[in-house]
Amino acid sequence: MRDTNLIRSKTLRGGIETLGKAPVVILSRPQMAENVGTAARAMLNFGIYELRLVAPNFGWPNAKALMAASGANEVLNRMEIFPDLPAALHDINTLYATTARGRDLAKPVLEAEQAADAAHGAIGLGHRVGFLFGPERTGLENDEIALADAILTIPVNPYFPSLNLAQAVLLSSYEWHRRRPERPVVQMEDKGLPASKADVHRLHEALMAELDEVDFFKTADRRRTCALTIETMLERRGFTTSEGPLPRGIVKELTTGRRRKESAA
Amino acid sequence: MRDTNLIRSKTLRGGIETLGKAPVVILSRPQMAENVGTAARAMLNFGIYELRLVAPNFGWPNAKALMAASGANEVLNRMEIFPDLPAALHDINTLYATTARGRDLAKPVLEAEQAADAAHGAIGLGHRVGFLFGPERTGLENDEIALADAILTIPVNPYFPSLNLAQAVLLSSYEWHRRRPERPVVQMEDKGLPASKADVHRLHEALMAELDEVDFFKTADRRRTCALTIETMLERRGFTTSEGPLPRGIVKELTTGRRRKESAA
Repeated sequence: MRDTNLIRSKTLRGGIETLGKAPVVILSRPQMAENVGTAARAMLNFGIYELRLVAPNFGWPNAKALMAASGANEVLNRMEIFPDLPAALHDINTLYATTARGRDLAKPVLEAEQAADAAHGAIGLGHRVGFLFGPERTGLENDEIALADAILTIPVNPYFPSLNLAQAVLLSSYEWHRRRPERPVVQMEDKGLPASKADVHRLHEALMAELDEVDFFKTADRRRTCALTIETMLERRGFTTSEGPLPRGIVKELTTGRRRKESAA
Repeated sequence: MRDTNLIRSKTLRGGIETLGKAPVVILSRPQMAENVGTAARAMLNFGIYELRLVAPNFGWPNAKALMAASGANEVLNRMEIFPDLPAALHDINTLYATTARGRDLAKPVLEAEQAADAAHGAIGLGHRVGFLFGPERTGLENDEIALADAILTIPVNPYFPSLNLAQAVLLSSYEWHRRRPERPVVQMEDKGLPASKADVHRLHEALMAELDEVDFFKTADRRRTCALTIETMLERRGFTTSEGPLPRGIVKELTTGRRRKESAA
């Protein structure tokens, strides 16, 4: 118990109360408690924190679920359990039902990315949005999908399409987070400007001088060709300004070091 | 054993030999065999099938990995094990190193989606592309990342960022598949045209006639307002042509059914 509380307080610190509005994840008739824990963790990885179970096939609270949540305990602590799907949907305005393939129902079929965009739009309009997932083996029944506004599908390799429940929750949650309109896309961090052309050129000259000294090129013709190849290679590597002096130091040390060694011998 | 073979032959049928070129997934120093199985399954879900391990912390073959692969055995059968990372990278031209956050290295940092696009480009040019993942607890060391062309990051909730190894493989593989240039994006299946305006209007008229008969509106003023509201509601529901007759049938049956019942009483 001590460990659990430790993890919980760690999660709380940056936690749920700082997250914005997000969809509610509803698991209909889940069969394995472990998957509820893994789903809770996957949700929290992407800032989703409201979880509802409909008629689970296991008791609650559940040690296996807690273990699998790996610290996403706050999601499990807030989780609600309902006897049937309509009860679990009582306050939901817009529902996306996740299925492996489109069913024979007159519903729009959206990929996870499109559903995430639609969900952001709906939440922006004040809707309570639900992401609905079926049981592990069978998926959602048609009468459950009938309650949804649209079907959410995850594009997979058609030859090996079976995703487990927690993976489906993970990917749907990932798209929700990835498509946040306000999320800044990762930018390359500023790790120094590319080395100046002059720096690269000085390196080239230093290298050529040392190679001339050991008569590396033999002929002037070969020297011309090689010089071009070497300069092209050096330019392409894209040294940064902070790395600039290092390659020249290496060239210098390789040669003077060798000469030191030779004169010592 | 019989079960395993059954699953294997099922996978083979549509299987690996029909899949196009794809990145190689390289797991450096994995600690838990189970994660190798889960990673193999996640890869195959998205059409990735070449897996390499560097100095795994467990013996091979491994029953736990096979169990966790849930049928992605063909990936495990083809898997190669190497003693060190340079050996595992011997034929790789372009390498993406997956890390939880940008490190203090002068590497481009790409989100999984951008890395997937770059990987498709590189494979199109004939490169062998690698996706590199570090051990479960510690992630990749800086000297491993130094071998990569770019860093691949997965956008997560900064307050709860820890993804497990198989989830990182899943999300990277998902982006690879999602961003296939040739992949057709799911389209709404053709499930019948929206009902014609005439059908919806006939339904409206039938409903109004029945409501008039029971003097539902009381006043002409209220009738006018309600008629507009009802027609708006009916239009918004977007019946399909095949569903068209059903609502009218319902209105008819509700009223004539009631009258039948009344006259019988």
